[in-house]
Amino acid sequence: MKILKMGMVGGGIGAFIGEVHRKAARMDGYVQVVAGAFDIVPERSLEQGRILGIDPKRCYGTYQEMIRGELALPPEERVDFISICTPNVTHFPVAKACLEAGFNVMCEKPMTMTTEQADELQRIVKKTGLTFGLLHTYTGYPMVKLAKDMVKAGDLGKLRKIEVRYPQGWLGRLAKVKPISAAWRTDPKSSGSSCCMGDIGTHAANLAEYVSGLKITEVLADLGTYLKGRLDDDGNVLFHMQKGVKGVLTATQVGSGEENNLQIWVYGEDRSIGWFQQDPNDLRVLGDNMPEQIWKRGNPYVAEKSPAAGRCTRTPAGHPEAFLEAFANHYKNFTDTIRARQLKKKPTALELDFPSVEDGVRGMKFISAVVASSKKGSVWVKI
Amino acid sequence: MKILKMGMVGGGIGAFIGEVHRKAARMDGYVQVVAGAFDIVPERSLEQGRILGIDPKRCYGTYQEMIRGELALPPEERVDFISICTPNVTHFPVAKACLEAGFNVMCEKPMTMTTEQADELQRIVKKTGLTFGLLHTYTGYPMVKLAKDMVKAGDLGKLRKIEVRYPQGWLGRLAKVKPISAAWRTDPKSSGSSCCMGDIGTHAANLAEYVSGLKITEVLADLGTYLKGRLDDDGNVLFHMQKGVKGVLTATQVGSGEENNLQIWVYGEDRSIGWFQQDPNDLRVLGDNMPEQIWKRGNPYVAEKSPAAGRCTRTPAGHPEAFLEAFANHYKNFTDTIRARQLKKKPTALELDFPSVEDGVRGMKFISAVVASSKKGSVWVKI
Amino acid sequence: MKILKMGMVGGGIGAFIGEVHRKAARMDGYVQVVAGAFDIVPERSLEQGRILGIDPKRCYGTYQEMIRGELALPPEERVDFISICTPNVTHFPVAKACLEAGFNVMCEKPMTMTTEQADELQRIVKKTGLTFGLLHTYTGYPMVKLAKDMVKAGDLGKLRKIEVRYPQGWLGRLAKVKPISAAWRTDPKSSGSSCCMGDIGTHAANLAEYVSGLKITEVLADLGTYLKGRLDDDGNVLFHMQKGVKGVLTATQVGSGEENNLQIWVYGEDRSIGWFQQDPNDLRVLGDNMPEQIWKRGNPYVAEKSPAAGRCTRTPAGHPEAFLEAFANHYKNFTDTIRARQLKKKPTALELDFPSVEDGVRGMKFISAVVASSKKGSVWVKI
Amino acid sequence: MKILKMGMVGGGIGAFIGEVHRKAARMDGYVQVVAGAFDIVPERSLEQGRILGIDPKRCYGTYQEMIRGELALPPEERVDFISICTPNVTHFPVAKACLEAGFNVMCEKPMTMTTEQADELQRIVKKTGLTFGLLHTYTGYPMVKLAKDMVKAGDLGKLRKIEVRYPQGWLGRLAKVKPISAAWRTDPKSSGSSCCMGDIGTHAANLAEYVSGLKITEVLADLGTYLKGRLDDDGNVLFHMQKGVKGVLTATQVGSGEENNLQIWVYGEDRSIGWFQQDPNDLRVLGDNMPEQIWKRGNPYVAEKSPAAGRCTRTPAGHPEAFLEAFANHYKNFTDTIRARQLKKKPTALELDFPSVEDGVRGMKFISAVVASSKKGSVWVKI
Repeated sequence: MKILKMGMVGGGIGAFIGEVHRKAARMDGYVQVVAGAFDIVPERSLEQGRILGIDPKRCYGTYQEMIRGELALPPEERVDFISICTPNVTHFPVAKACLEAGFNVMCEKPMTMTTEQADELQRIVKKTGLTFGLLHTYTGYPMVKLAKDMVKAGDLGKLRKIEVRYPQGWLGRLAKVKPISAAWRTDPKSSGSSCCMGDIGTHAANLAEYVSGLKITEVLADLGTYLKGRLDDDGNVLFHMQKGVKGVLTATQVGSGEENNLQIWVYGEDRSIGWFQQDPNDLRVLGDNMPEQIWKRGNPYVAEKSPAAGRCTRTPAGHPEAFLEAFANHYKNFTDTIRARQLKKKPTALELDFPSVEDGVRGMKFISAVVASSKKGSVWVKI
Repeated sequence: MKILKMGMVGGGIGAFIGEVHRKAARMDGYVQVVAGAFDIVPERSLEQGRILGIDPKRCYGTYQEMIRGELALPPEERVDFISICTPNVTHFPVAKACLEAGFNVMCEKPMTMTTEQADELQRIVKKTGLTFGLLHTYTGYPMVKLAKDMVKAGDLGKLRKIEVRYPQGWLGRLAKVKPISAAWRTDPKSSGSSCCMGDIGTHAANLAEYVSGLKITEVLADLGTYLKGRLDDDGNVLFHMQKGVKGVLTATQVGSGEENNLQIWVYGEDRSIGWFQQDPNDLRVLGDNMPEQIWKRGNPYVAEKSPAAGRCTRTPAGHPEAFLEAFANHYKNFTDTIRARQLKKKPTALELDFPSVEDGVRGMKFISAVVASSKKGSVWVKI
Repeated sequence: MKILKMGMVGGGIGAFIGEVHRKAARMDGYVQVVAGAFDIVPERSLEQGRILGIDPKRCYGTYQEMIRGELALPPEERVDFISICTPNVTHFPVAKACLEAGFNVMCEKPMTMTTEQADELQRIVKKTGLTFGLLHTYTGYPMVKLAKDMVKAGDLGKLRKIEVRYPQGWLGRLAKVKPISAAWRTDPKSSGSSCCMGDIGTHAANLAEYVSGLKITEVLADLGTYLKGRLDDDGNVLFHMQKGVKGVLTATQVGSGEENNLQIWVYGEDRSIGWFQQDPNDLRVLGDNMPEQIWKRGNPYVAEKSPAAGRCTRTPAGHPEAFLEAFANHYKNFTDTIRARQLKKKPTALELDFPSVEDGVRGMKFISAVVASSKKGSVWVKI
Repeated sequence: MKILKMGMVGGGIGAFIGEVHRKAARMDGYVQVVAGAFDIVPERSLEQGRILGIDPKRCYGTYQEMIRGELALPPEERVDFISICTPNVTHFPVAKACLEAGFNVMCEKPMTMTTEQADELQRIVKKTGLTFGLLHTYTGYPMVKLAKDMVKAGDLGKLRKIEVRYPQGWLGRLAKVKPISAAWRTDPKSSGSSCCMGDIGTHAANLAEYVSGLKITEVLADLGTYLKGRLDDDGNVLFHMQKGVKGVLTATQVGSGEENNLQIWVYGEDRSIGWFQQDPNDLRVLGDNMPEQIWKRGNPYVAEKSPAAGRCTRTPAGHPEAFLEAFANHYKNFTDTIRARQLKKKPTALELDFPSVEDGVRGMKFISAVVASSKKGSVWVKI
């Protein structure tokens, strides 16, 4: 299999998510980081490149330089795709520039700051025919893919209700706010119109749509700010989906002691399922007058029910997988899609199973709608 | 300790909750069932009395007969209190009649069908000075009492948010509806204005108010009926409490495979707690940069933090207690209050720790408000 | 159903297990405590009787007085059975005397101090035809009964291996030793040849034999005393059962922080099961290439697989039951057996499902064998 | 940081553990696989190299060829270390040859087939001064490192007892035996004197010694073969450690439905801890009259107590890590040790925190002793 060349914008020294991107992309051995504008300070970008063993000529000070530099190389030497791991506010301009220069893009979320930007990016992706991925990590977990495939196969019967919770606690105290990642998240200038909903609410909404295969059609929100001077750091959302499914989404960043406790329950006429991110190798299945079932990652019966889950499994049952592997699964499918297209083949549905620009558009519309609903005193707002 | 004499209205052959009342009341050995109008069919009432070893003369056909019969006895032979375990629609008239005849009352919930009836009952209780208890079972669990006392002691710091979920699945299919208890629950005539919210939503709301020590001030609801022809069998509620606390309450009776999965999370500035009814001996405590703690029933450190929990503990740590004991705790405090008052003593706060007529009034207002909110398309309604 | 009259030896003020016996016996309303030699100090016995509302004439100072006193009553007024909740050393003489006087007996475990006494008691029970029960609590749990019935039905295939652990921590420090129950447990004079194995090891062995339906044929033990001057407070035992099943049993009373954490795993060719006393409403079922199943108490599918479990269930699924109910189940079956025999009927297998004098004999042989094995330096000793 | 060059023996197409080695070694980006004798069939080795993007000249047919080929390169181009992932029987000769040729070695376990070979390898490692690592995966988990550091810091007080269980089920049926890895495991010729004890019992023993910091001094075993014609596929072991600590180790490969359920409990005078491999991000801490604590990976309080755990943590709390990361931690420390020695620096204790040739020697002695004990009818055998 062809080893793809990866470039990065962001992901400099000390950046948590940039290092996760690298570990995930490289996990299966078919991606190499060969270029990067890792930091807006050129010396720091160079230093990160040195740490990573990258040719100093390909350690750029800005994304614009990187685009120019890579385009100056012979086509076969250029990066095959660029990963964007910068603060939220820059996702859109960087992604736009990369796409317009002809590079495939893997982008951190939220994709943009406004729904208009999101729409524009979607048009660009469509026009260029390039591959665009978005890092909604949690749909990368194999047991989430199993959940989706169970719903799709009708195992749950007609869906009735979805509850999704996403409590975190790391922004619970002003004094504890960490310099880099916390500061920009809570600042409207770099984070857009929402903090909690933009940062984690969108993950929860994306998870609900992914698993159910249904779109959220309207929302009603009660956002709150417990620590003054911030954007929202908490929110509660009622929502309606297609086909009469109702739902509730709660997210908080000020739940003292909560780590990253994303949980989803999907209720159907025949079966219900529950999946909890902090226990990601299990999927719980409930039904009328039957024992509760715990489907466990890595078993043949899982792969049989869900080829998407089976394909995204690296270790056998009982040898747990976790966050990095979920992340790596998106890179796996994203890069397999690029490879297929490079060979002029149509990517399969399994290869295309990673969050797309459409997910990004929906995420921005979700944020926009919940912010609008809350501002109006909690009224239903259509998406 | 004086053994109190208990009378029952309802609780005939095959009635689940009536038998629970008896087991709970008798658990500590200081209550005896000596009279009952167990069934509206006199022969069946007599038969239940026979099964229970009760004097046939005190097995009545109606609650009116029971009141007359008991009043005809010398005061020291009369029942000390009457437990009402009939379908919802009759709670109010029976309770009213018992109180007005001078009997203390333990009543199943919901207390009445309307807020007006609730207010009237509250007036009667106040006027008569009698002891009135309401069976919101879940606040009887010792670890719920511990949670309340932790909040009260300030261990959680200023409260921020409460999430409470109450999924059940037993009404999830029409065909499976059980003859007695399911039929009247889903029928407006016997259940009032709400099924799901009246039956279990009020438990969840009561739990949130009990643990937090705060009142819900306004609600916004999205109720639903998944099986046609019924009252609501599902509902999602946003709420606001005193002191700026926000919350979310979800309840469903159509969550396939869910049993009785009441769960509550309370988030404060300093600590957060979680309690799950199906795992009732544990209370989870989270905080910033500290290990998660599982406080376990029956230990000295629990009784020290919460005398109310310590008092309501019968077996040592590791010898689990459960639903019946929680139920019995309400009877224990209710009957201790009656004994104190019979001795002309002021009941202590610990003795008074059982759901009261005020809880019943609040429950009815909660139901009324959520039904109104949902009918108006999910708007905020004050309680 | 006839209300049986219960007498007690032991169970005075402050005695934990005596109160458990009373609560359990009375739980279903068909047993009344009417007599007792609650304490060797007559005044204290009288006081306990007063607390319980018992006729002072039937509050005796010694078990001998009780036997005489009850025999002096007309047969229909006498106690139907006597429960023995005294320190270990007295179980045998009291049980013997009660049986020889014609009374049915429910006895705390261990049944006797020696295997010879156990054999003698077995002969007396056989000779008199009286009903004798032994309080190995844990086989009273419905999910343990389900486990037994699964094994019996062949669901696990041929059994291979059993692991049973019973860690407690309450005797982990000398300073913390509680006056009454801890003192006699660790003293050879009142506890026999073993503390840890006698007190909790026998429970674990009994559980293994009950669930598997197989007898332990030989043991190899490594007992230990971590706090000097005591009998064993810890022990590890390898064992062999009938039909080639192997096993391991560990028990400790000095496992810091452990409460009452009895756990059992049974491995068969086709299925494996796990049951954990601190989570008693669940039974875990594992098998090759299938989701793990959690069978949950109170559901129709449980009662269908195991009528013994169904019969011993008081509250619906999701309304947990626990230790007292398990205890009560033994009383239920024990008293139903007495009632059947009083009516000259042969008790059914379901009624006879409580620990018997045979279980007591086996328990004593188990203790004797593990003590002998350990003394000889851990050699195989036949039972 | 210098990127180290890795060679492999074994790890060809379809080999589970070889791919795990590669993912783990490469995880942090400082190791590249540049050479390999991946398969004894040269064409298959070449094909695996092609898949991995390795220079065909460095895809060798045998380990002897690889050693010759690498030695023929200039020293700075040669592999920095060689990972051995072949069937058990070949570990010793390959490791010996690599070390004698001057290459650092990371070896799968068990290290050798006999204790004599183990002793010889230890002598060679000592003589050459090369770095030798052994893949006892489970001590790579950060929460196991935390456990070790808690014990070392005296948090548990004097240790009393260790229980370690390692149930698997994948060899539970003959028909299901997988062609490659199952066949040689159960065959004495390729697996040595033990299957279950050699394959997983040694992991459990190693874990007990690592966490406690104590050596097992004698064992008493009852091994068994449930599926005829095999070496042991099950075993139960009593053991004694230094300082009077007692223990029990059980392992099985025929526990129907068990995946990889390694569990350890360590009991001390003051605290007890429990760690379960299938839930690897948590460490449970129990103590007298205190809430149970769940220490959770990724938190500052964990890194403070255990720098070894902190150093081996890649994602923040709540973003779970798992098996691959544990594996990668051994590679991280192993390669950091190599780097230090290449720079003529003394590796730190944190860098040296990976399983060594001494662990391998102890593992072989453990296997030898338990096999001898069991053959003699379960007698104590000194290690």
